[in-house]
Amino acid sequence: MLVWEIVALLAGLASIAVAAYIYVWVTKQEVGNPEVARYSSLVQVGAATYLRRLFQVLGILAAILTVILLIAFGWRHALAFIVGAACSAAAAWTGMIISTKANARVAWAARTGLAKALSVGFYSGSVMGLAVVGFALIGMTVLYMVFRDPDVVLGFSFGASTLALLAKAGGGIYTKTADIGADLVGKVELHLVEDDPRNPAVVADNVGDNVGDVAGMGADIFDSYVASVVSVMVLGAVLPAFEKNALYVLFPLVLCAAGIIASLLGMLVVGRSRESDDPGRALNMGTIVTAIIFAVLTVIVVLVLDFGTRTAGVLWPVLAGLAAGIVIGFTSDFFTDIDQKAVQNTAASAPTGPALVILEGFSYGLLSIVPSIIGICVAMVVAWLLAVSFDVPGTYGVAIAAVGMLSITGMIMSSDAYGPIVDNAKGCAEFGKEPEEVIAVCDRLDAAGNTAKAITKGFAIGAAALTVLALFSAYTETVGVSSLDIRQPGVIVGMFLGAMMPPLFSALLMISVTKNAGVMVEEIRRQFREIPGLLEGKADPDSARCVDIAAAGALKELIVPAVLALLTPLAVGVILGPTALGGFLAGSIVTGILFALLMANAGGLWDNAKKYIEDGAHGGKGSPAHEAAVIGDTVGDPFKDTAGPSLNTLITVMSLSATVFAPLIVKFALFGL
Amino acid sequence: MLVWEIVALLAGLASIAVAAYIYVWVTKQEVGNPEVARYSSLVQVGAATYLRRLFQVLGILAAILTVILLIAFGWRHALAFIVGAACSAAAAWTGMIISTKANARVAWAARTGLAKALSVGFYSGSVMGLAVVGFALIGMTVLYMVFRDPDVVLGFSFGASTLALLAKAGGGIYTKTADIGADLVGKVELHLVEDDPRNPAVVADNVGDNVGDVAGMGADIFDSYVASVVSVMVLGAVLPAFEKNALYVLFPLVLCAAGIIASLLGMLVVGRSRESDDPGRALNMGTIVTAIIFAVLTVIVVLVLDFGTRTAGVLWPVLAGLAAGIVIGFTSDFFTDIDQKAVQNTAASAPTGPALVILEGFSYGLLSIVPSIIGICVAMVVAWLLAVSFDVPGTYGVAIAAVGMLSITGMIMSSDAYGPIVDNAKGCAEFGKEPEEVIAVCDRLDAAGNTAKAITKGFAIGAAALTVLALFSAYTETVGVSSLDIRQPGVIVGMFLGAMMPPLFSALLMISVTKNAGVMVEEIRRQFREIPGLLEGKADPDSARCVDIAAAGALKELIVPAVLALLTPLAVGVILGPTALGGFLAGSIVTGILFALLMANAGGLWDNAKKYIEDGAHGGKGSPAHEAAVIGDTVGDPFKDTAGPSLNTLITVMSLSATVFAPLIVKFALFGL
Repeated sequence: MLVWEIVALLAGLASIAVAAYIYVWVTKQEVGNPEVARYSSLVQVGAATYLRRLFQVLGILAAILTVILLIAFGWRHALAFIVGAACSAAAAWTGMIISTKANARVAWAARTGLAKALSVGFYSGSVMGLAVVGFALIGMTVLYMVFRDPDVVLGFSFGASTLALLAKAGGGIYTKTADIGADLVGKVELHLVEDDPRNPAVVADNVGDNVGDVAGMGADIFDSYVASVVSVMVLGAVLPAFEKNALYVLFPLVLCAAGIIASLLGMLVVGRSRESDDPGRALNMGTIVTAIIFAVLTVIVVLVLDFGTRTAGVLWPVLAGLAAGIVIGFTSDFFTDIDQKAVQNTAASAPTGPALVILEGFSYGLLSIVPSIIGICVAMVVAWLLAVSFDVPGTYGVAIAAVGMLSITGMIMSSDAYGPIVDNAKGCAEFGKEPEEVIAVCDRLDAAGNTAKAITKGFAIGAAALTVLALFSAYTETVGVSSLDIRQPGVIVGMFLGAMMPPLFSALLMISVTKNAGVMVEEIRRQFREIPGLLEGKADPDSARCVDIAAAGALKELIVPAVLALLTPLAVGVILGPTALGGFLAGSIVTGILFALLMANAGGLWDNAKKYIEDGAHGGKGSPAHEAAVIGDTVGDPFKDTAGPSLNTLITVMSLSATVFAPLIVKFALFGL
Repeated sequence: MLVWEIVALLAGLASIAVAAYIYVWVTKQEVGNPEVARYSSLVQVGAATYLRRLFQVLGILAAILTVILLIAFGWRHALAFIVGAACSAAAAWTGMIISTKANARVAWAARTGLAKALSVGFYSGSVMGLAVVGFALIGMTVLYMVFRDPDVVLGFSFGASTLALLAKAGGGIYTKTADIGADLVGKVELHLVEDDPRNPAVVADNVGDNVGDVAGMGADIFDSYVASVVSVMVLGAVLPAFEKNALYVLFPLVLCAAGIIASLLGMLVVGRSRESDDPGRALNMGTIVTAIIFAVLTVIVVLVLDFGTRTAGVLWPVLAGLAAGIVIGFTSDFFTDIDQKAVQNTAASAPTGPALVILEGFSYGLLSIVPSIIGICVAMVVAWLLAVSFDVPGTYGVAIAAVGMLSITGMIMSSDAYGPIVDNAKGCAEFGKEPEEVIAVCDRLDAAGNTAKAITKGFAIGAAALTVLALFSAYTETVGVSSLDIRQPGVIVGMFLGAMMPPLFSALLMISVTKNAGVMVEEIRRQFREIPGLLEGKADPDSARCVDIAAAGALKELIVPAVLALLTPLAVGVILGPTALGGFLAGSIVTGILFALLMANAGGLWDNAKKYIEDGAHGGKGSPAHEAAVIGDTVGDPFKDTAGPSLNTLITVMSLSATVFAPLIVKFALFGL
């Protein structure tokens, strides 16, 4: 077995080594335009300052949780928790640094053509992708090699998840505070364009893109990736006595290693695209090549590991999970695709004003839940049935299917991180007043980023759904409840309370955004009023002040939702008992996925309805229809960038919190409803 | 036992007799203003035409379902189904006729002062309240006396629920098609006031108020009332052998009789209020007196019926249900109250434009889920624990608590129907250019109606939640599944699919509204363009054409959602098995209640934020803040009047459909996941 653990470790180290190599390569690229360089360094400083302060908050919260874990379970769990939070923080930090350095370089590379700019953009994104899978796999493998106890690795996952919660919620509040503030005063009141250097909140807005979309998303995917692996390890450890039981615990780590190798090869496909290639197609091709290589490697690995009569029962669920991820990913953008009916119908309502835009977009957002939920259900049932047909427990089958989906995270995360990098590159090019054709190149890169984002988003939600279902099984195994029958009052009450959590959490985050955005609006207005010559472009705005408002507001506001997410499962478990907590987790998973889909898709749809009108439909830019669509887009912003994407993390962290503390909950439960 | 059945029957007959007496009294009141009389008769004709066409659609659907029931279960079930649909239709029809006749009379009575206008308004509403409980109780009692089989009474409930689904969904689409169409052209484009006689959609808008708020709401409450009683009867019939088992089946009918007597006495309190009384306080006082009298009667009834050692086990849950209803009702308007923080904070965002109004209102709508869900959970757990402490099954305790809440429906429904009547009376007074002081009286009546509505809405959602939980138990008892463990893949897949239904159903209804409203907007614009002198008030609009568009659109659009609601549970049951269907129902109940609360409260909040600004805050009427708040209100309209209120009915009808067809589902299930 040791040889396979070493393989996993080496794959993780290779991932980090390649990331480091690419990092150095990217930083060696030229920045060129001095105006852009200055702007880029403002964003770098702002982002780094914010992350440092976020890590301070994390430090305090982590210290408290570490002490609790130390007292309750001993030093091993506490150590694993700290390592988990640290590895996740390292991945987020790496990604954020590279992305803030990359955008100016992509903008400059766009002068020499599309192919060069695409490779700088994509390779920069791949630093993030590789850092995520590398740090995660190294952390899990080392902890498992040292302690040989999946429960300790669970502590690692809990640490990663706690950071993800803070990074996602904080980043989500930050980015939309700045964005909405900048838009409301800049675009609506003063009719400035996006990224106008006179707008004091423009730097904060771009910092927000990096801390929200890059660092936050990195921590989120890190979290899902680790949680899926750990839930398989926990479920593998409690299997009935098979031959080679230990294999089932080790298996997900080996799959991750295979996924890293496949991702590295897939990245080469994207990086080598030619000038004439469509960048969107290049990204998709990379994903598909990665998936095919991973599938081949999986077959080889499973055959070599040799699960005996149960070989098919582990192989098929992995491939089913991978296939489901691809299918959900490539089909889930129907409702947000600018060329489809949903976006165009919504845009067609715009001439009647913002009310129907919002109603129509919200309704399509509700509809968009349907295909994804059906996809997730099919994936789950197929994985379950394939597993049990070959005498592997269905819960293990579902869990390993989630790993199958997530194992190509290296590639998926790279495409995803590429999006905000090229988006900001476009901002840099506009800021630096680059020539038309350079901006056109950036535009093409950006459009490809949006397509890739739609696919990776579907992938991420599908994978998160299977992962939390696996975590749910891990919880029920750990807590050892005999029945979770929904006819029991405790289970149904738990379900109601759990179902309430995602809307509650979303509400708290969105209220924070509207509150902070109000403060930001006041500050921007004050600067235009009090700094002479600002509006005429003769004086510089006080960008640092806006960066500070966004950061301070986000950090203050994330405390309540974060503590709520960590403590509510414990409160339910201790007061109502472990059975009710099972119902609680199930309820939270169901509505969490529902609201995540609703908010992500409605937000994306409004964004594209606006773009559709900006492309000339219904009067184009500046028409009343455009104004209505801009309002729809502003409503959608916190949907898709604050509340929606935090919900994955919320349900993961609640499931982990319940599973980690399960032994205590069983011991101290007051009532058993 | 027979004596108690006769008591129930007599109470039902008394209810109808009093309703008939009041009906005659109301129609004898003077209309006075001839302009108002003409307008009122247009609304009457429009409403009656719509209802007739709705009943035709119902007739077709009912004929199909009757044939299915006839083949599957024999003529008894089929007959009960028809009677249920007919009784529910009769109640809706009565209420709608009286409400369209009453508004002009209330407006005229307002000339003689508040006390007279209040009694005309409230007594008109009570015709509806008494018709609902009367027809329901007579129908159920007679069917039970004749067939002695709760399963046959279940058919009655299914019939009532099918009508409610059509009435609610159709009425909801109708009313908002007309309302949004009238507002978008009238208020936004031409700056006409509400209820301006030149607007061609004004009559349709007022017809909509009657078919949506009165007929639709009546059918909905009829549905909940019957479903709560029937689920107790079904659960009572499968109890283990107690002494006097038949008593547990009969008990809810007797409670309804007590509720009718209490409601009749409570109504006298409201009808006798003096000129100096606050009408809102009078309505609340009526509710409280009714509740107290009902509690006393319940104690007497339970002691006389004599449940032996289990007396406390049936008495306490009933009283707990009643108390929970009152508490949820009186506290649930925090988020929609014009004097509270949520409404005022949302209004405070209005000066920055509509985007933050919508975000803030939506966020508070999400938050508003929390207290109601906690209230429902507490009511359920308390009822369960009180029952099991005295050896009564917990499911029976929860079910009888729902009946305890709903037994005072006569009074609750009267206050609720009062709301749209006085609202329309105000419209009549304005239409008929009555003097200032008359309109002021109508305003005070209307304000009281809004307060009453907030309370009855909380009551209705709380009661519906307990009722569907009782129905869920009835389903599981009928289908006889051994376990509904959420660790089974079938149950979890069922939960996901069920959870998806309320958003899907809401989306279909709201898309219908936006589609029809678009057609309506075109028609109104056409009339202003093509009818010479219309805008100058020299020509009459073609109101009938607008009434027709609203009606035809609503009836066409309700088919798909209605068929979906009736068939999906059967499809899930037959394809995935009865266990998955159990999960399906549980999932639909959880998200159904969640979305119902979200939509009702967010909609009410936006409405009041607009009113708060109209009362003078943030620039008052005509200010940019007001314009932003109007957009929020328009978004909220289909939330609170179309999708939100239909969800109760959706989850009831799905649970009933599953329970009625349970024997077939068990027999023909293809897979048993």
